[in-house]
Amino acid sequence: MDREQLDPWGSSSIKDYARLQTEFGIDSIEPLLPRFKKPSPHLSRGIDFGQRDLGRILDAIDDSKPFAIMSGIKPTGVFHLGTKMTADDMVYFQSLSKKATVFYAIADVEAYNDNGITLNESAKIAVQNVADILALGLDPERAIVYKQSEEMRVMRFATIFSRGVTNNMLKAIYGDRPIGLYVSALVQAGDILMPELPEFGGPKPVLVPVGADQDPHIRLARDMAAKYHDDFGFIPPSAVYHKLMLTLSGDSKMSKRNLSSSFTLDESPASAAKKVMSALTGGRATVEEQRRIGGQPDICPVYDLYKFHFATDDLHVKRVYDECAGGVRMCGECKSEAAGLVKKYLEQHQKKRESLMPDARELLVRSKAYLASAGN
Amino acid sequence: MDREQLDPWGSSSIKDYARLQTEFGIDSIEPLLPRFKKPSPHLSRGIDFGQRDLGRILDAIDDSKPFAIMSGIKPTGVFHLGTKMTADDMVYFQSLSKKATVFYAIADVEAYNDNGITLNESAKIAVQNVADILALGLDPERAIVYKQSEEMRVMRFATIFSRGVTNNMLKAIYGDRPIGLYVSALVQAGDILMPELPEFGGPKPVLVPVGADQDPHIRLARDMAAKYHDDFGFIPPSAVYHKLMLTLSGDSKMSKRNLSSSFTLDESPASAAKKVMSALTGGRATVEEQRRIGGQPDICPVYDLYKFHFATDDLHVKRVYDECAGGVRMCGECKSEAAGLVKKYLEQHQKKRESLMPDARELLVRSKAYLASAGN
Repeated sequence: MDREQLDPWGSSSIKDYARLQTEFGIDSIEPLLPRFKKPSPHLSRGIDFGQRDLGRILDAIDDSKPFAIMSGIKPTGVFHLGTKMTADDMVYFQSLSKKATVFYAIADVEAYNDNGITLNESAKIAVQNVADILALGLDPERAIVYKQSEEMRVMRFATIFSRGVTNNMLKAIYGDRPIGLYVSALVQAGDILMPELPEFGGPKPVLVPVGADQDPHIRLARDMAAKYHDDFGFIPPSAVYHKLMLTLSGDSKMSKRNLSSSFTLDESPASAAKKVMSALTGGRATVEEQRRIGGQPDICPVYDLYKFHFATDDLHVKRVYDECAGGVRMCGECKSEAAGLVKKYLEQHQKKRESLMPDARELLVRSKAYLASAGN
Repeated sequence: MDREQLDPWGSSSIKDYARLQTEFGIDSIEPLLPRFKKPSPHLSRGIDFGQRDLGRILDAIDDSKPFAIMSGIKPTGVFHLGTKMTADDMVYFQSLSKKATVFYAIADVEAYNDNGITLNESAKIAVQNVADILALGLDPERAIVYKQSEEMRVMRFATIFSRGVTNNMLKAIYGDRPIGLYVSALVQAGDILMPELPEFGGPKPVLVPVGADQDPHIRLARDMAAKYHDDFGFIPPSAVYHKLMLTLSGDSKMSKRNLSSSFTLDESPASAAKKVMSALTGGRATVEEQRRIGGQPDICPVYDLYKFHFATDDLHVKRVYDECAGGVRMCGECKSEAAGLVKKYLEQHQKKRESLMPDARELLVRSKAYLASAGN
């Protein structure tokens, strides 16, 4: 990672989360933790580490005032563990208030641009992706799902914002990039601010749960909110930041491209379990050495599987950590246990997802009708 | 004007139209003139001087094959003489074939960005602008008018094209510009290529009538047509180029900003006539001198009024030129005659436009329904 910029499009490595706070102004989430009555695993396990204006969201929750949660997915056919983390945050914050509305963008134009997936193919994949999120717990009654290719409001904002930014501003946030990435960033700023339009109830707090590497998009959206405050009354969007988990091969960012180093939620449970068994670990060279000085959970992708997704509860995470660091847990048995958890999770998730496909279709149809009636 | 670039957004001066041909590859229109059975005043008076692939349009006319004519307007409330020139070309080429369909873009997002005009205000102005074009002779039966803010197809193309251009390509065409202008250029490329989508009958010749300074937009659209040929089957768009007339104060480009140096089609006839009477001319310092060596019609804004718009026919233009250059026409009488013509023209045009307002509304409504049924 460059000292100056975070790279929302690359496979950047973030080792020092504290630095993000001093360098980019992301605030620590710690002072706000007492305000959560039932912290999510992301909160209790230190996965959600940072925030911007999250207090504004907590105020809205306390005061039963409307707020939005905005996120999205590029429908490339895979729903991987990184996507799941964002979805988990989205679902959790939605559960905290009946006044929370989720806006979920299906980035089908991006999928065409980046992956050559036609809008028709995207439409099919989108249904699956929506079923994935429903299986993760999204309440469809308070969710609006839209396709980028159909949402003129977002494109209008992108065009307007393109006049409000300077090239230097974009360079400062993203570095020197091809114009296509700048445009996609402006579109995302449009996504983030759309919930504040009058047809959706006007200016309101908007929470965007993101991986730490996505902070540039948050900064751009906040800059635009400030710049166009007088025209649209924007309240600057809030963000909650989660840490990035290690890939199975020990890299810093889950990638949809390197398939052996990660698995997806629609992968066969057996194949995913096999990948877990071949994962890199933080283990020592020999069993003897591991018993003597302990393993290294902090750099272990298998430990990250427990911590970020598959442990049954926080105590389970702690136990895995302590046993590993204490030299009583060996990598083979640890992987077997993780592979079993993954397998079981995927089996259940896929069954649930399958049963929710009709609900996903209905949510897409209902959202489309709603958005049209809101005068796109 | 820069030696390297034309400036479609500035008030650039073009003195040497031949240079545009050698430097940017705009072809002369002369070899094609024999193919026009009834040349327009723009053709017979040398106002349309250049073209790209205009032969493809003439072939379509000869073979009775479908083609499109694409143009647009920024609805800022004024329809000035530069806009009229583009509209005149559009109307003329539409009249040459029953298979010609006009696509007319109301650039309301641009109007908001550049002039702070809200989309609602734009909508009202758009009706007037459409009535202006109908008064100029557009056949509404073969015209589709759309608002930029409602046409997702165009925005989709802009997003796709933003990934297909490099920053260097944009710099080579437009110079180093703020990203907002690049985005607006990409949107215009989308406008130009939209008529080639399957829902409008698929790839076809598209003619874009433009002022000479707009050639960068044509080059970008042609580059995109080539780049995305395999995906969309694009036929590269054709263009016809008209010269820019002098403003009343002798500047090189009609501007919507300097109000005293030009008049608009909705200006009061008396006010416009008054502006003509105060116009700069190519006259000599004294009447005596003018009688002796003649005036200079080639640098005279008043002569341009006759030539570009208000002379009754080509012979009239020639007579004004010869009388001026021959020292028998003095500026005062010449201005009076021009002012009279302008006044009469505006009176008639405004009456006609007023009577066509219902037709304009109908065209907008019909276009919107058609575009929606074509599956936006």
